[in-house]
Amino acid sequence: METKSAKSVDWFDIRPGEVATELPPAFDAGLYYIGRIRTPWARREDCPKNAAESDTVCTVELDPRYARALDKVETCSHLILLYWMDQARRDLLIQMPRHYSEGRGTFALRSPVRPNPIALSVVTLVKVEDTILQIKNIDCLDNTPLLDIKPYFASVDSKPDANVGWHRDHHR
Amino acid sequence: METKSAKSVDWFDIRPGEVATELPPAFDAGLYYIGRIRTPWARREDCPKNAAESDTVCTVELDPRYARALDKVETCSHLILLYWMDQARRDLLIQMPRHYSEGRGTFALRSPVRPNPIALSVVTLVKVEDTILQIKNIDCLDNTPLLDIKPYFASVDSKPDANVGWHRDHHR
Repeated sequence: METKSAKSVDWFDIRPGEVATELPPAFDAGLYYIGRIRTPWARREDCPKNAAESDTVCTVELDPRYARALDKVETCSHLILLYWMDQARRDLLIQMPRHYSEGRGTFALRSPVRPNPIALSVVTLVKVEDTILQIKNIDCLDNTPLLDIKPYFASVDSKPDANVGWHRDHHR
Repeated sequence: METKSAKSVDWFDIRPGEVATELPPAFDAGLYYIGRIRTPWARREDCPKNAAESDTVCTVELDPRYARALDKVETCSHLILLYWMDQARRDLLIQMPRHYSEGRGTFALRSPVRPNPIALSVVTLVKVEDTILQIKNIDCLDNTPLLDIKPYFASVDSKPDANVGWHRDHHR
């Protein structure tokens, strides 16, 4: 007879100390998936812990209908990718990250769990070929839906002195 | 009798040299507006040209249903705001920015005109009071729908050496 194994706590289950809200009854706007991000990671536990230090080259497969919108993207050293965490629950307000003893507000976290589960990564552009972009420094699951590609402008996007107090204090 | 004034070219009209595509027949996912960004700018021509240098303090009015998700946000020096450019057309692939002689691909531009008109700004957080955030360095229209608030982590979000070749070459 099998013994029932303890179910591991999933990122998207609710944990003790977490707080949920009731979401609005209807959406206000609609999104198109414009492509897919292809990575070697099929399960969340396989994804790199620190995307900034990951040297794995991943690819963006853009829907060919948008091919011409890539004009001049090859001149960018870094891009901002917005993508959709389609498996994330959307109703949590207070989340309990692993290894933390107290909850934190969703808007103080980069967790995929949020009212609009749009994730953002600053990636290094390696190469553009037709509608395929080779990129580095991403940590998402294979086949993640892509929402947008933006050029990264250091003049407005780079804030080297920015800090996140709760995170800094935790790591002291 | 009134003479008909020349209609000014709108950001969201199509211009010579621009290229549009046919968008997919249906949306793939839905968004909630989680609040509004309040600024002094009611018309596009009033918005500051350079948000990074603007000292105007604007406010984010968060839907009170998400109030608890602001826990610990006050410890962040900078935030990433994602907001929805609800007046932007979504079908342009090649755009002709003002003062440029040739078109550029939508994904090489930060124009609000894109398949998913999600705009992104890195803002300085001044103060959090209940569900009102005081922020600096934003340039959007008053009442713009808010989609997300994220903490800015310099370790992954700041790339001071990033460059956008087409833009650098233009400004030489």
